[in-house]
Amino acid sequence: MALYEATSSAPVNIAVIKYWGKRDTKLILPTNSSLSVTLSQDHLRSTTTSRADPSFERDRLWLNGKEDEIKPGSRLETCIREVKKLRRELIEEKDASQPKISQYYVHIASYNNFPTAAGLASSASGFAALVSSLAHLYNLTPPLVSPSVLSLIARQGSGSACRSLYGGFVAWNKGSSPDGSDSLAVEVAPASHWPNMHALICVVSDDKKGTSSTSGMQRTVETSTLLQHRIKHVVPERMALMEKAIQERDFDTFARVTMADSNSFHAVALDTEPPIFYMNDVSRAIIAVIVELNRISLEQGKGYRAAYTYDAGPNAVIYTLDKDIKDIIQLIVSFFPQKEGEFKDNLGVFGEQLAGNINAQAKVPEGFNRNVALVHEVGAVKGLIHTKVGDGPRKLDSSETLLASTGFPITLA
Amino acid sequence: MALYEATSSAPVNIAVIKYWGKRDTKLILPTNSSLSVTLSQDHLRSTTTSRADPSFERDRLWLNGKEDEIKPGSRLETCIREVKKLRRELIEEKDASQPKISQYYVHIASYNNFPTAAGLASSASGFAALVSSLAHLYNLTPPLVSPSVLSLIARQGSGSACRSLYGGFVAWNKGSSPDGSDSLAVEVAPASHWPNMHALICVVSDDKKGTSSTSGMQRTVETSTLLQHRIKHVVPERMALMEKAIQERDFDTFARVTMADSNSFHAVALDTEPPIFYMNDVSRAIIAVIVELNRISLEQGKGYRAAYTYDAGPNAVIYTLDKDIKDIIQLIVSFFPQKEGEFKDNLGVFGEQLAGNINAQAKVPEGFNRNVALVHEVGAVKGLIHTKVGDGPRKLDSSETLLASTGFPITLA
Repeated sequence: MALYEATSSAPVNIAVIKYWGKRDTKLILPTNSSLSVTLSQDHLRSTTTSRADPSFERDRLWLNGKEDEIKPGSRLETCIREVKKLRRELIEEKDASQPKISQYYVHIASYNNFPTAAGLASSASGFAALVSSLAHLYNLTPPLVSPSVLSLIARQGSGSACRSLYGGFVAWNKGSSPDGSDSLAVEVAPASHWPNMHALICVVSDDKKGTSSTSGMQRTVETSTLLQHRIKHVVPERMALMEKAIQERDFDTFARVTMADSNSFHAVALDTEPPIFYMNDVSRAIIAVIVELNRISLEQGKGYRAAYTYDAGPNAVIYTLDKDIKDIIQLIVSFFPQKEGEFKDNLGVFGEQLAGNINAQAKVPEGFNRNVALVHEVGAVKGLIHTKVGDGPRKLDSSETLLASTGFPITLA
Repeated sequence: MALYEATSSAPVNIAVIKYWGKRDTKLILPTNSSLSVTLSQDHLRSTTTSRADPSFERDRLWLNGKEDEIKPGSRLETCIREVKKLRRELIEEKDASQPKISQYYVHIASYNNFPTAAGLASSASGFAALVSSLAHLYNLTPPLVSPSVLSLIARQGSGSACRSLYGGFVAWNKGSSPDGSDSLAVEVAPASHWPNMHALICVVSDDKKGTSSTSGMQRTVETSTLLQHRIKHVVPERMALMEKAIQERDFDTFARVTMADSNSFHAVALDTEPPIFYMNDVSRAIIAVIVELNRISLEQGKGYRAAYTYDAGPNAVIYTLDKDIKDIIQLIVSFFPQKEGEFKDNLGVFGEQLAGNINAQAKVPEGFNRNVALVHEVGAVKGLIHTKVGDGPRKLDSSETLLASTGFPITLA
């Protein structure tokens, strides 16, 4: 009999207009729209294999080889149920010749290629890969089913996961319907529209367990006196500005609004009772370095060279363009030296110059005021990941399956 | 001939509703009202002697023994000129028998009893002591001249200085007149109204030079998208709540609003382009400790035990009541041990138990989750100053003069 299985990978996305606050916690409907950049799956991705088989006794899922219980009413169960329902309604009930595989239980194996310790949210890429692999398993693909429709389901797994259903530049429209049917992701522009956009992730060491974004954002909704103003006035204006900036490849506006919105999000987190802090002293030092870099350039009438943004944690993501990425890596390692051999020159910026030690490349631009930050000890920024804007979920070849013929996860090296 | 001289001391004040933003930078008119607690001069004070003498050749001022140039158009010059003008208009022009000492030049010596390195703003107590000593020199005292009238002048030296003209709990009404004539300090309640109010100042070490409040607040006015909402909606409501809380000695509301407004101020500072950070990781750790202390108490239905507030720097000021001050000092030193012998038990909390080493008193309340903060190294909080709510400027005895018979500052030991 046929093997009903599909494997997909899905990307990480990093918002430039931040999602913070739900108006419906069950359906995961946000209080404001948001906009993100999809990062390349060549470097950061979640990969998921879904298989439907009449021999399976219940829906099961393994994350990085470890089974994760699918609890009734959980976000995981909701996503699986909703994709099965689409299969049934759009295919099986319309064409009796189609196999009724939505009735079979599924086994799902998922794997993130980046360590949890990196502090990068894996829920967005994870739920996007889950929904994408199930969609391929069930033939829920364009033109029958668009990524936007799948984004409605991924959203119920993890809000920001909906934005990982597209590559490039993606808006999550907050929508207004109480059932959430218009709270979905749309493509603002594909990665190919602005391919020279780079991202440098600075993985910041933190000794403090932060507030989870799920509980944190609802505390902000309940207690912040500034959040409603952000929701009603600040974000709508920035969404419009940002979409236009992306259409026009206007990096100055893109950078200015990205930094302002990161600050605004952390401001409303701080304006919460009790206050929520995600950035630490190292995060602040990275901001000081980027601000000084831009200051010099702006004074020379040359515009912004980089934009920082911070999610619900201390890691910085720095967006910049092709022409500036080398200088920015050199600048960052000047203040935040790396453990020798740790830096992977993913995109060949340094070529043979590198010889394993990125610290030897440390360099600050002319006129840069070195007093804006201390030179930190090795490990304050414990890793740098250089990547680019990338495409949406990919259907992978069956040779990349994560499930063995037994129906259980294969052991990854 | 007569010696025309007066010496005053004036207190520090720490706002619980923060002043941040000017609508007129020359007259120092704020964008919002603010409210502060005056701290006891027994522990922190500025002392100023002003002398008028026909032999003096120009107005001169020495701060901590070092001459400070009185530049034309400066804030210092404005204050001296305005007090002289009051003398002339209210006394000399009305009663020809009064000596025309407003025509003499003045020599002024001022001294802060706390080190600049402590990072405590001395401009509030300093300008209040300056204006107060000149007022006594010129007999501009109640009922002829109220502290509120003097506060109009001190305000033009340093905005928050106007609040140091009263003891206890003091509001600075923003006013609406373009000439600033109604932007003055009023007493909400004297220190005696709520005498069991204590303050513990945690002097936090910082390796980074911060943004001055003068330039910082105007950058916020120019670039923050949240500030106007704070000004128009958040602060007016909190001013009313806070005045009522003080009248009713309602520590729960006092604490809740104090912490919320400190957070709100730092939130709008963060929402500035480029962002302004005053708190660092140690400041955040102090917040985490106070939040946990209150959490336990609130869960037991006992209300707030302490309130933190942060000005334009990393130092915490913790307000609490008599009944809790000992526990709070013991809690703070549990996470932020002090250099042996540094802690001065100003108010005799520990008595003979202390024997020089406050760290031996470290203790956390039952049920306190120690994981909310790391135990820091000695010096992370480099000093603790324990004080209380206190009275307004004091006229000191002539024996406490800071000027020698020569008209120049005496040398202080």
